[in-house]
Amino acid sequence: MTPQAPTPAYRRLSVEERRSQLLDAALSLFAHRPPEEISLDDVAERAGVSRPLVYRYFPGGKQQLYEAALRSAADELRLCFDEPREGPLLARLSRALDRYLAFVGQHDAGFSALLRGGSVAETSRTSAIVDGVRRAAAEHIMSHLGVADPGPRLRMTVRMWITAVEAASLIWLDEGKQPPAEELRDWLVEQFAATLSVTARRDPQTDALVQALAADA
Amino acid sequence: MTPQAPTPAYRRLSVEERRSQLLDAALSLFAHRPPEEISLDDVAERAGVSRPLVYRYFPGGKQQLYEAALRSAADELRLCFDEPREGPLLARLSRALDRYLAFVGQHDAGFSALLRGGSVAETSRTSAIVDGVRRAAAEHIMSHLGVADPGPRLRMTVRMWITAVEAASLIWLDEGKQPPAEELRDWLVEQFAATLSVTARRDPQTDALVQALAADA
Repeated sequence: MTPQAPTPAYRRLSVEERRSQLLDAALSLFAHRPPEEISLDDVAERAGVSRPLVYRYFPGGKQQLYEAALRSAADELRLCFDEPREGPLLARLSRALDRYLAFVGQHDAGFSALLRGGSVAETSRTSAIVDGVRRAAAEHIMSHLGVADPGPRLRMTVRMWITAVEAASLIWLDEGKQPPAEELRDWLVEQFAATLSVTARRDPQTDALVQALAADA
Repeated sequence: MTPQAPTPAYRRLSVEERRSQLLDAALSLFAHRPPEEISLDDVAERAGVSRPLVYRYFPGGKQQLYEAALRSAADELRLCFDEPREGPLLARLSRALDRYLAFVGQHDAGFSALLRGGSVAETSRTSAIVDGVRRAAAEHIMSHLGVADPGPRLRMTVRMWITAVEAASLIWLDEGKQPPAEELRDWLVEQFAATLSVTARRDPQTDALVQALAADA
């Protein structure tokens, strides 16, 4: 009985529009409660449609809906990483992080449930979707850094930072989104620069990047 | 039919000895294959005992055995963090990391399966065990740093570093344990110092610690 925007369920939607309407309804529910607590009834109610209609789109039931919603969220998350290849590198990272943190803030509990693991909805397929996003993030970073063939030390550094960003996001949600997103973003960018500098001491490829970043700032 | 150390199955073991023998057998199997591929038969064969005996100790079957093995590994991992409160702080961290990396190297696939998520054996209980180890690691660090009441920025920094260490461990296993453990350890210690320094710019509590660390080195 939560208030909701009037949904034009009577309007004829195309298959794609309907699917996307149901996924949006599911994602908005996942944002406030863990996936195991959301039923198809809840999704139908939220979208203002009948339960059979939800089943028609997701005959595999809850798990199929969850995976489709996750895939849709993963696609949205990848879009956050899109950033024109112009201007200082750390400023680009900063803008991508702004979009990422807005995404995290918006999906809240759903984002936590997903990354924390141990959810009943978690399977090797859902883990693969999440890993795909992590890989996409690493590829974006390498591409902005202009590195076509990253060595193991640089790869490890970037993947460690990405994991650390995830951890920070979860803690940030736990702490009621404190510190403010802008401060968290700046701090994450500074951590990125610092972690590269540490690796630069042992790795000529990373060292060259750090010099370039310093010249670029 | 893998070669194995002769197991004195004929000797009468106490309940605790037997349980621990079965857990050791399970852990050595989990080190090479993901938990979903290990049957109670495998554990019985490895330990040189009958399948009914394994069931007597773990009537809940595979999942119960897996959780008990995980709990036993978690206890072992906590012991890695034990370090006398003397000498330079970063040297203590370095010794704890040596033990941690030895543990990771020894448990290999089991460690990966556990932390990667999406395993069929993963439940909210197993996630809670893993989270307990992370919390213990953070508490050890705070206690060595002499901080009784860490503020949110320092807490986030330490938890981010712990997550980054996990990520690095998984990549390290994927890369056939390259770079060598000693290099990885030194690099992780340097990352710890660098990440604290970044936070110190925004947080007086962390700044005081960084000053103390510099004086202590």
